[in-house]
Formats: sequence, structure tokens, C-alpha cells
Amino acid sequence: MIIIIKNSSSTKQINAFKKSIKKSRLDVTLHKSDRRTFLSVHGAISQELKDQLLSFPLVENVVQETKPYILASLDYMNKPTVIDLNKRLIGDGSLLLIAGPCAVESRKQIMEIAQFVMECGAHVLRGGAYKPRTSPYSFQGLGEKGLQYLAEAKEKTGLAVVSEVLTPEELNMAVHYVDMLQVGARSMHNYPLLKAIGAINKPVLLKRGMMATIEEFLLAAEYILRGGNSQIILCERGIRTFETLMRNTLDIGAIPLLKSLTHLPVIADPSHASGKRQFVPALAKAAVAAGADGIMIEVHNKPAQARSDGPQSLLFPAFKKLAAELFQLHSFIRNHS
Amino acid sequence: MIIIIKNSSSTKQINAFKKSIKKSRLDVTLHKSDRRTFLSVHGAISQELKDQLLSFPLVENVVQETKPYILASLDYMNKPTVIDLNKRLIGDGSLLLIAGPCAVESRKQIMEIAQFVMECGAHVLRGGAYKPRTSPYSFQGLGEKGLQYLAEAKEKTGLAVVSEVLTPEELNMAVHYVDMLQVGARSMHNYPLLKAIGAINKPVLLKRGMMATIEEFLLAAEYILRGGNSQIILCERGIRTFETLMRNTLDIGAIPLLKSLTHLPVIADPSHASGKRQFVPALAKAAVAAGADGIMIEVHNKPAQARSDGPQSLLFPAFKKLAAELFQLHSFIRNHS
Amino acid sequence: MIIIIKNSSSTKQINAFKKSIKKSRLDVTLHKSDRRTFLSVHGAISQELKDQLLSFPLVENVVQETKPYILASLDYMNKPTVIDLNKRLIGDGSLLLIAGPCAVESRKQIMEIAQFVMECGAHVLRGGAYKPRTSPYSFQGLGEKGLQYLAEAKEKTGLAVVSEVLTPEELNMAVHYVDMLQVGARSMHNYPLLKAIGAINKPVLLKRGMMATIEEFLLAAEYILRGGNSQIILCERGIRTFETLMRNTLDIGAIPLLKSLTHLPVIADPSHASGKRQFVPALAKAAVAAGADGIMIEVHNKPAQARSDGPQSLLFPAFKKLAAELFQLHSFIRNHS
Amino acid sequence: MIIIIKNSSSTKQINAFKKSIKKSRLDVTLHKSDRRTFLSVHGAISQELKDQLLSFPLVENVVQETKPYILASLDYMNKPTVIDLNKRLIGDGSLLLIAGPCAVESRKQIMEIAQFVMECGAHVLRGGAYKPRTSPYSFQGLGEKGLQYLAEAKEKTGLAVVSEVLTPEELNMAVHYVDMLQVGARSMHNYPLLKAIGAINKPVLLKRGMMATIEEFLLAAEYILRGGNSQIILCERGIRTFETLMRNTLDIGAIPLLKSLTHLPVIADPSHASGKRQFVPALAKAAVAAGADGIMIEVHNKPAQARSDGPQSLLFPAFKKLAAELFQLHSFIRNHS
Repeated sequence: MIIIIKNSSSTKQINAFKKSIKKSRLDVTLHKSDRRTFLSVHGAISQELKDQLLSFPLVENVVQETKPYILASLDYMNKPTVIDLNKRLIGDGSLLLIAGPCAVESRKQIMEIAQFVMECGAHVLRGGAYKPRTSPYSFQGLGEKGLQYLAEAKEKTGLAVVSEVLTPEELNMAVHYVDMLQVGARSMHNYPLLKAIGAINKPVLLKRGMMATIEEFLLAAEYILRGGNSQIILCERGIRTFETLMRNTLDIGAIPLLKSLTHLPVIADPSHASGKRQFVPALAKAAVAAGADGIMIEVHNKPAQARSDGPQSLLFPAFKKLAAELFQLHSFIRNHS
Repeated sequence: MIIIIKNSSSTKQINAFKKSIKKSRLDVTLHKSDRRTFLSVHGAISQELKDQLLSFPLVENVVQETKPYILASLDYMNKPTVIDLNKRLIGDGSLLLIAGPCAVESRKQIMEIAQFVMECGAHVLRGGAYKPRTSPYSFQGLGEKGLQYLAEAKEKTGLAVVSEVLTPEELNMAVHYVDMLQVGARSMHNYPLLKAIGAINKPVLLKRGMMATIEEFLLAAEYILRGGNSQIILCERGIRTFETLMRNTLDIGAIPLLKSLTHLPVIADPSHASGKRQFVPALAKAAVAAGADGIMIEVHNKPAQARSDGPQSLLFPAFKKLAAELFQLHSFIRNHS
Repeated sequence: MIIIIKNSSSTKQINAFKKSIKKSRLDVTLHKSDRRTFLSVHGAISQELKDQLLSFPLVENVVQETKPYILASLDYMNKPTVIDLNKRLIGDGSLLLIAGPCAVESRKQIMEIAQFVMECGAHVLRGGAYKPRTSPYSFQGLGEKGLQYLAEAKEKTGLAVVSEVLTPEELNMAVHYVDMLQVGARSMHNYPLLKAIGAINKPVLLKRGMMATIEEFLLAAEYILRGGNSQIILCERGIRTFETLMRNTLDIGAIPLLKSLTHLPVIADPSHASGKRQFVPALAKAAVAAGADGIMIEVHNKPAQARSDGPQSLLFPAFKKLAAELFQLHSFIRNHS
Repeated sequence: MIIIIKNSSSTKQINAFKKSIKKSRLDVTLHKSDRRTFLSVHGAISQELKDQLLSFPLVENVVQETKPYILASLDYMNKPTVIDLNKRLIGDGSLLLIAGPCAVESRKQIMEIAQFVMECGAHVLRGGAYKPRTSPYSFQGLGEKGLQYLAEAKEKTGLAVVSEVLTPEELNMAVHYVDMLQVGARSMHNYPLLKAIGAINKPVLLKRGMMATIEEFLLAAEYILRGGNSQIILCERGIRTFETLMRNTLDIGAIPLLKSLTHLPVIADPSHASGKRQFVPALAKAAVAAGADGIMIEVHNKPAQARSDGPQSLLFPAFKKLAAELFQLHSFIRNHS
């Protein structure tokens, strides 16, 4: 961290200030030219410390030249984290395909979809049992019953299953049924949930908050890593901007950006990003071309009757075509770069 | 809700579609001119339904002409909700002043601040015991100990106290100590927490998420109202935009906008909006002039040693001056409009 | 357009209102059920008219179900516009590659870069002669001298050349030297310039404003189309969001979205979107995978000495590799979807 | 400027780098501790230079600790700029009231409005003659005829008049008729126009671009200042965010923020910010309370027939009431802080 001192400060003031920082057991060095004075500080720098420093009248600015996250950083571990999900590796250069409905709606529905996406080559079945809905009047999910259906679908198809949890209680329930836990975009800032997930030993799909910076996203991962769970898959799912013709704006740049900052695998969710099924194939291919380790796609057997997110769910024929194209594209990209 | 039908649709298709809607027990009317065909649908319209309708090939667009929230709306109750907080009325035209540190840091700190803000005319003492922090390396709050200090400060000064909770468990703990519960910006989308708060009988300070639309904000209030708790105070605290010189952008327009949509009282938090103490007075005055029912301000006895949000906390003399100015301004505004 | 009437309105009021609309020679039909009343209006609907209608007390809302642009719309022309740029077709399914420095800096620089990008397969040479710079202290371009160097480079390499103009005067100058005119992101709302460009007979590269909606982008194209010039290439170049680690956020979804709305070709500029050369390849590939008709890339022989946008310019070896990869990827995508 | 050097760099590399910077005739000092190496650079730092430096492999980051604008800064001139507009001072602590229609529509309309706003205490009459409209199908203004009507209204009422220009040509025309030129939000990045305005000797109303950062806003002012014209009034008029219930989000914090950075007067335009007349009074009062030097309000004699921005224009009685309230509020604020 670099502390830029106002030019108007006296040597006496600067020395007193330096001394007061040293009290906090920080390693501090004074840099002085005829034009400018800085202090460089070494050690674990919390936001509080930065805030406190900004409160001193002689401080012009505080510049954090190191990243605020540690365990999530490539500086900490400079080879990719590879996650083993029921023998399927994630982050090893292969393409992970997660597919399924937004919400588990019935035993029949999830079985039918599971069977189909498995035949198309998907590795993981998604399906929400606890749904975070903006409106209290919207369908809130089947709860444990939904988890049971997922487990049954897993049994039958051999697919791994992933489902979202909103609270530590739901987490305690879900770990008995699913292979991977999902932290949704609305929960990315739910620190008690992140801490609870840090304490379990299962892969986690962590979605970026719809208005989270990349740094905040990695700090959310840091909460989980710090708890001891390093099996984290980051998921870019679109951010909120002024443009309204699509539900969100897929931040395609987040994929190479994250890969330049962290060792964790990164996947994309083109279904939530676009909100409209007609745009899902283009966004999914873009994400593969940009280097994503996986793609998560919503599929429904009867989208017009879906209880949530129907307009963004692919129909069976469209999903079959897209799944094949994505695997081909991924092979091509791998062999030509 | 109005469903706009594509011009290319045949009468047969339209009739089949209309019939299928009626099956969902909705009241539907066909509107037809030589140019355009619409269906108007009456009844409780969920997001799912809207989504499902958009999935039909003959649907061009679906327009929601009614608001998605009900209990929070002025249509439901067209006089202001007045909340009684320990005999102090909120939303009755008076100005509520909430003040205190970002976080409770020690018994001494909270006592000193409580005494001072009480003397300056504040009605409510704020202070975080459970802190949602972006970084796991930041100070996370004193927990129950912090709540005990708040209760002690209340005892001594007569101030009501408000504190944030992040989970239903913390809520169960906090209700024994505080007079008002706070749902922070990061928890506005935490639906299990909102449901838990809907079940208690205490005033709630609900902060707008930093990325939340006004409609989503009112839907969060709807979760609480629907649970049976109508003692909700809405708090505008700044939204995230591309401008970075201030921490957030205080959406001053949200104050009159909310007042045109809901009966709930609306306050502003200029401290979190600006992130810098020098801008707090201007924003606080602006909020009073825009019609806010209250202002929440961060105050610290020693900001340079604050364990969170030091740079935005007012010093004692500045707070004293501002408190007096805000009450005067509020009286003036009340008497001159 | 649909005008939703407030439920509180009397039949008399509605009839008077309907009559007043008819005076504006608009074709209006009344739709009435026992629940709701609408008016549907046919004809050319300007923003003024919509605004005026919203001013009537009995109007609850006005919904535009038709698009505000006409000539740019697929409804107007439902086959792709193919542009002939010196015998090279754009928008016919092939991939256009535009490359060159941000600014023309010297005769030697532009010659060297032109020769290299031509050898790598680029079709068009870019290079700014008139530079719109946020700061008056930044390099503002070589002006006509820059255009002359471009023309010389064209002579030598056979590449078509494109350059940005900021005013009708610069346009009058540039038409003598370049094959395609560029309207930069900062000029997308410069209507006098758009009108001037509508009057010439040369291809135009129209960049999306960094905070322009897709609808505004197409309305800017509409200005040019309406002037009689239909040789427009739309360019997505990143929008401004809250994320700051990249200069802008490439709105990858804009590519399929534009293709679903307009017949004009769409290309992407990953260099300005990312602002950092290390991310350019991933974004360029993503754009090709998403269906872009072309890619524009900044290349510099000596980026560390570039007078603008050095950090985003590719070095020669990186550009050579990327150009080859993009053509291969484009062929692959074309043959596999 | 501070250049942070990567820890992996060798002393030899650093020295070579330092030498290469010195070649650009910059004053550079090396700062070294056992942990970190920086270079501090003194002198005029352009964006190009910063960009070039970022291109060096050994550079980790470049931090600009000085502001990129000079003449607009309080560091350059630390007392408020007071502008004399036909004997009326702006920026001297008084409240400037600008009022009028969005566009001049007819002689009768502008005369009637001018007379009324003059009687209500307005100092300046606004009215657009050249209108920048998003759609080519919208009313584009009366051109010179509109300017003539404004001049006539000035003659009759004694009000100063302000009108927007979009090009240097329109500027040359408008200077003969109006007292103050307006640069609209869409032209804030139109550098040729800013340069032309820098060369005249009349007050300028410079509106913030709807996507412009405060720094970019001040750099636009810098273009004008550098041309020799220092009579600039900055106008906050709302920025574009994800919230859509209001047309824009008035960035109320921009008022105190600008006042902490520049000596130029700052006013607010609540009409364009809200887009709806019912919210104009609250926003106008908020801006006065936040310290604005003036308010610009749209007023129309017959808003339902306005040819642009009707829904945001105040009716005569509402304007009369608001004008009185704003002057009272301003006096109160002045006497109580």
C-alpha cells in the first residue's frame, strides 16, 4: 500500500504520522523526493486500515497496489485449481456442460429433462429447489421434495446434480442430496452463507452478483477459501447495466480477466444473462471462445409451462444442437490457439 | 396485463391461445381493431405467468400495466404508514434523526457517542454488531457483546437503538436487545431473512440494495408486509453507477418517487452514499429538502481509529452543527410548501 | 402505440380525449372491457406525440409496441445489407478484418503497420487523423497530413482505409482520402454529423456510444439511412458499467441482438472494449463466435511509443497469430452451425 | 504520477527504464525500500504518457495522484469564478433561476412563457432553437427563427437568453442573438464544438454528459478554459443508471463534489433529470439545499401540446409556486449554515 502525503505537510507531521502507523505493527518506509513524499506499507492491509489512513488530514490518497484477496489469487497459487466432481474434472482444459430447468417442478419434469440432457452429453444436472424470487408472489420452489427428485434423477442418469441454497439450514439439507452447491447471484454478498459453505467439503458454484465488481466476486470466493473449501467454480451470469433489451449484459471480458487473476475455474451462464432463448447459442459460443471452462444452460421440456424463467429455457432440439456445437467448438479452440 | 399479439397471427391461433389462458382461471378479454389485436388479462399476475406468456410464438410483447407489489402500494393504502418507535412517531411529518458509529467497537465508544448524539437531538442510536464485510479480513463486528453495549447505551440515554442482522439466527438474538432491526443493502435480496423479519413485531429499517431498482426495493418490502409486519422504514443509501469519486450515487429522486408509489416512510443515509464525511452535510440537507422522513448519519468519536467506514463518519462538532441545521431546515420546508 | 386509460376516467373524458387525438390525423381505436380501457393508435408516432399523450391526466401509460426506427429495421428490409468496399463484400457471411494503429503518427509508422497487417490478411487499414481526446492536453491527431499518409499506405498495400471524422468539415476533407468514414463512440449522438454523413456515398463505420442503448444506436443509424446512405456498418465497442478493471464492458449480447433487429452488418472492436492487449484475443474470438461480421483491432509497431491507446495495441507477432486464428475460427463457425 | 515497479524486476531493468523516462524530459525520482520500488514523476502528464508507461513489462501500475485538468481546478484558482451575465452575477452566492420551454415553438409561445417566468423572478429564459433529438423523426427545432423569437422575448422582458448549439456554424449564428450558449449533454464530448466555444467571449452553460464522469466533465470545461473562455457554468442534469422509473438519476452528490474540485459555478437541471413534472420540485429543492448556484427549469404554457419534453414541463401555477419556494429556501440555507 502506498500512502501519498499532501505537499503541504511538515516533516514533523509526517514523522508523527509514520510513528503512529508503526504502532499498528506495520512495516513502513518513507520515500521522499524534492517534489513528493510517500509512505509504503507492507503487511496484511484491511479495508479498515485503509479507511483509517484516509482519515488523517495529511493523507492525500491511499493506493492499494496489492490485491485485497489472497487465497483466490494467482500470486498465491499459480496453477489452475482442478476440481473433481464425481470423477469428472473441472478446470483441466475440458468443457463442463451443466444443463437443466430453472426450477425442479415435478418428478416427471426433472426425470424427462435429466434423461435428455444426459443423452446430449451434459455432465451435470441443474434444478432449483429453493428459489430466490424477487416477488413473494412467485413460485418459491419445491424445497426438500425438489432435492429428492434431483437425487432420483442422479440415480437414474448418472449425472452429478447441483442446486442452489439460500441459508445455512438449506445447505445442511442439500448436502445430503446434491454433488455441488450453488450460491446464487443474489447471495454472493451473503457472508454467513459463504462462511457456512467454506466449512463443507463439496464443490461450489459461485455466481457473480449482478452488480458485483470482479474484485468483490473474488472476495466472496475468498470467504469460502478461507473457510477451507477450495472447490469453487466461478460463474459469470451477466451484470446489470442501462441496456434493457436483454435481461442482463453478459460480461464476456470477465472470463479472460478472471483467468488472469485467479486459479479457480470460470464458467458462464448465457441463459440468465440473456433472458431470451434465441440469444443463448450466440452467448454460449462466445463464452467458449473466450476461454470458459464450462457452460450452464437452462433447458425445459415445456418452456411455455415453466414455473420460472420459461422464456430463456432452450427447447430440446435447440439444446441438442447447441450441446454438440459447443463441444466441437471447444475442441477446435483447444487445437487452434 | 396486456398481451400484444403479432400481426401475423391467425384468428384460429388467437382463439386457441385465449382459451389456453382461460384454463389458468384468468379473466381475459380480446381487443381487436383492423390494425392490432390485444388481450387484456385481469387477476394476480406473477412473473412466471408473464414469462410463460412470452414463450408463445404469437405473443409480441406482454405489458404489465399494474404494479407487481400490492401491500406496499398506495393503491392498497393511500395514507402514510406512521410507525411508533418507543413513542416516537415516524412518517407523521416529523424528521427522524438516527446517528451513531458504523460498528459498535467497545462499551466506552458506544456510550460516548450515544450520549453525544442524544444531546444533539438524535432519536435513534445506530451501531453494527454483525457487520457484512466485503473482505473476510475486515472486522466482522462484536456480535452479541455489541448488542449488549447498545442496550446499555439505550438504558443510559433513552435513545431507541437499531442494529443490522444478516441471518434469522442473528435476528432471534437481536430482538432481545434492540428496538428496530436493520436489513442492510447487501441483504435486500435475502428472501429467507425478509420472511423471518415479516414474522416479528418490531420496526424494520430496510435499506435499498446498491443495485436494486425501486420496484425490487418495494418487492423486498412486500415480503415483509406479506409476513404481517407493516412497520417498515425504507432507506435510500446510494446506488452503484460508473462514477467513482464518491462511493455510491445518492439517488435523491428515489425519495419523491417512493413517496408517489408507497405509503411507507422513506429516509436517507448520506454517509454510505458519499463515503466521505465532507459531502455528508450537503447530501443530508438535500434529502430533507426532497422530502425524506428521516436521516441516518454516521458519527464517531475518533474516526481515525474507527474499525469500519472511518472516512465517512462525522466528527462530534460537525455532527452537532449538522443536526441543528437539519431540524431547522425541516421546519422551514414544512412551513413553506 | 397503446394508450392505457386510468380506471377512474369517465366515458365522457375518454371520448373527448379520443376526439382530440383524431384531430392530429391519427388512426385511433377504442378497446374496452369491463376492467380496462385502451386506445390503440396507428401511424408514425414521434417521441413528442408520446410525451404529449403522457401529459393528459387520464392517461396511465403509453406503450410503444412498434420500434422507433424504421429504415434500420428488419421489418423494413428483411435481408442482410451487403456493402461493397472496394470490391470486398461486408455482411455477406465473410469475416472483415480491420487493423491498424489508434492514431496515424508518422509516415513511417503507418507504412510499416499497413504492410504488416496486409500480409496478415487484414482487409482494411484503420488510423486516426482527427482524434477525439478526453483531455485537451492529449495528442489530437495529425489532421490532413494523417489522411495523406493513409492514402499513401492504401496506394502501396491495396488496403482500403478508414478514418474517423468529428465534424462536417473534417468529413469534406476526409472523403478525398479514405474509403470508409468512421463515426466514433463520442459522436454517435452528434446529429449534424450523422446528417452530413447521410448525404455522402461512402461506407460508414458507426460506433456505438459508450452509454447508448441499442435503440439509440439504431436511431443514429436511422439518421444516416434517412439521408440516403445505407452503407452502414455497426460497431460494438464496449459500454460503460461499474466495473473498472477493463476500460469498458464488451456487450457481446449486442451482436446477436442487433442481428435480430436490423439488416445492417455488425462488427466488434475488442481493443477499445478491453483497453488492455492481453484480453484482446479472447474478446475477438468471442465476437466471431457470437456472429460478428468483422473485427477491428489495434496494432502498433512500437506500442510503448504509441501516442494514444498504446496498452491496448497488439504487437506484430500477437496480431499475426490472432488474425490467423480468427479466420480459422470464422470458417469453423460457418461450417458448424 | 507514481509508477509502481513489479517486484520481479532487476535493478538493471529499473535503471534502464528510469533512463528512458528521463529522455522524455520528465523529472523522475527513484524510491526504494527492501519491499517495493516506485518511481515518482513530475511534470505535465498526458494520458498518452500514462498509457505508454503501462506498456512496459516491468510496470505493475501507474497511479495518477494529480488531477488531469489544470485550469478548471481549485489548485489553479482557489476562489469562485463569478460570471457577469448582463449585470446579473452567477456564482457569487446568489441563486440563478433559468426557465423556459424545452424548445422555442412559436413567437406567441415564447413571448407568453417569457413574460410569465420573468414575473416569477426568473433571470434567464431558456428555449431550444437547434434540438438534438434521438430520433430523426422528432421535431428538430425552428433554427434561426427560434433565435429571433428569443431575442424578441429578451427585448420585451429584459431577461437574458440561453440556447443550445450543436455545431460551430450554429454557434456563429447564435452569438448574434443570445447571451449565453448551451452545450448539451450529448455534445459534452464534442471537442471541436468545445474548442469553438473556447474562442468566444460569452458565458457558456456546459451540461454534463449523461454518461460522463466528473473528471471527464471537468476536462470538457478545460477545453473551453484553455481556449480562453472562463465564463463557464457547469450543469448537473442526471446520469444514466439501471433505474428506469425516472428518465435519469440526478447525481445530487455531483454538486458538492464539483464544488470541492473546481472554482466554476454549478447549477442543476431537475427537469431533464426526472423527466416527469411531479418530481421537479423535490429535485430542485434538493439541489438548492446541496449548494447549487442555480436551477434550470422547464416551463410550458400548454405542456400537452409541447413539441418536446412536455411531460417534464411545469405548468404556470406550479412554476410560480416553486420559484418562490426556491428563493426562500436559498435565503434560508444561506443564513443557516
